Amino acid sequence: MLTDDGLVLLRIDLAYDGAEFSGWAAQPDRRTVEGVLAEGLGRALRLPQPPQLTVAGRTDAGVHARGQVAQADIPAAALAREGGPAQSPGDWAAACAVMLRRLSRALPPDIRVRGVSVAPEGFNARFSALWRRYSYRVCDDPAQADPLRRRDTLWHSRPLDLTAMNEAAALLTGEHDFAAFCRKREGATTIRALRLLDWRRDGDGVATARVVADAFCHNMVRSLVGAMLPVGDGSRPVAWPAQVLASGARNAGVRVVPPHGLCLEEVRYPPAAELAARAAETRRVRELS
Amino acid sequence: MLTDDGLVLLRIDLAYDGAEFSGWAAQPDRRTVEGVLAEGLGRALRLPQPPQLTVAGRTDAGVHARGQVAQADIPAAALAREGGPAQSPGDWAAACAVMLRRLSRALPPDIRVRGVSVAPEGFNARFSALWRRYSYRVCDDPAQADPLRRRDTLWHSRPLDLTAMNEAAALLTGEHDFAAFCRKREGATTIRALRLLDWRRDGDGVATARVVADAFCHNMVRSLVGAMLPVGDGSRPVAWPAQVLASGARNAGVRVVPPHGLCLEEVRYPPAAELAARAAETRRVRELS
Repeated sequence: MLTDDGLVLLRIDLAYDGAEFSGWAAQPDRRTVEGVLAEGLGRALRLPQPPQLTVAGRTDAGVHARGQVAQADIPAAALAREGGPAQSPGDWAAACAVMLRRLSRALPPDIRVRGVSVAPEGFNARFSALWRRYSYRVCDDPAQADPLRRRDTLWHSRPLDLTAMNEAAALLTGEHDFAAFCRKREGATTIRALRLLDWRRDGDGVATARVVADAFCHNMVRSLVGAMLPVGDGSRPVAWPAQVLASGARNAGVRVVPPHGLCLEEVRYPPAAELAARAAETRRVRELS
Repeated sequence: MLTDDGLVLLRIDLAYDGAEFSGWAAQPDRRTVEGVLAEGLGRALRLPQPPQLTVAGRTDAGVHARGQVAQADIPAAALAREGGPAQSPGDWAAACAVMLRRLSRALPPDIRVRGVSVAPEGFNARFSALWRRYSYRVCDDPAQADPLRRRDTLWHSRPLDLTAMNEAAALLTGEHDFAAFCRKREGATTIRALRLLDWRRDGDGVATARVVADAFCHNMVRSLVGAMLPVGDGSRPVAWPAQVLASGARNAGVRVVPPHGLCLEEVRYPPAAELAARAAETRRVRELS
């Protein structure tokens, strides 16, 4: 959509290898995904300065993404330059396709832009999202260890019983106060709706968690995984993660697993007609808390 | 099996990320898979010097493996030390399991040992093999580009028509003189039986070649892939790779694709009773040529 002040809101779908980034959020003198992407956008569009970005999931240092979604307000004139005068939706699509190629060339190989589009009215990459889905990969069998995946897979030295881990996971899903699994931020709620938490073996035998929630607090996925691994290898009972949850306090027995097994796989938005209402609702809940 | 001179022949199944190796074969002052593995074996077994290795597929610099097979003659006493006095097959299995853990610790993360076993009588990692299977990964769609797989996937800027590529591939299978697709070595035959060559899309949309032959000459898989990509993107006709093959001479239009998309996936051996006969037959054919 084109706003009155001559800006268009671009939706940018992207993937990155988090290993060499100090996380998403821009920081002075650090290589961050936000910093590198904004700088690439500025160059690709020949803007006087890098644009401000808003993102669906602020990933930590070392965490990867295949389905990250960001947005930026871009001067319509700069975008139109890429695809000729853009008046109709078809023109915008052509300009975005040119833009995708230019941006790909402007970015290093550890960030790939998977899509560029003009966002529909009411869209907000962060507040319109219905849910986020993460994965966490754990290899527990030396006979399956794949050195080519060592940068996105945790190696665990004891075999994991996924049935036990799924029983433990089932006791964690639903709306709860996840304070026990979060790094606390003053004045922010730790109540979250955990929609899905399960473990499956991939084709290559790797144990992979799927974790879906409306939103996550800081360290939440890595703490949940850290609470379930001891169940899988038999060092804790199935009920233990739920007991930690119920205690409402962080537990020294829960290891926050390393970031490199974690990947933001998908961010889901409602249909276009519901984007603005969803964003308003999310903002209302955040303000209440 | 235990030989008269007190040696046992160990079979070692391994996987590696080829990026930081100058290929398989040991070279002075270069980091090679053979060099690092032999040195790790020497340390894990406390041998006076690293053992000699024989391998199924001598991969080039930058080429990966998930299913490589190597062998080494090891003093039975050194192996028995790991698992107590080894007399029965069960004792050997226990010693090999201990050995696998020690060797894993002795090796860097870009080589993983997936199995250690005492080889059956007649086994030779190189000459007993029936066939080798390689894969080559090509991503031809920016919307699917995965930075986490950039180290084992070639990015191709134009979309590939796998139907056309499979038609071209079908004209290459069978027993032929692959001189047009090989780096020539003096006195060595370039006749090979190409059992399977096809392209499929993986779950992540990546175009993946499966290539199976009794054995490969140098650069053969990378040249075959290099001949099929122009068919896939429409810059050469379907019949072109077969025309190059029939010419019997290397063609400047065939690009040898980069090594990082290539992986040795599997080496297949016959049942134990046929190992020695297969090795003798392979040696006879090599000597004839």
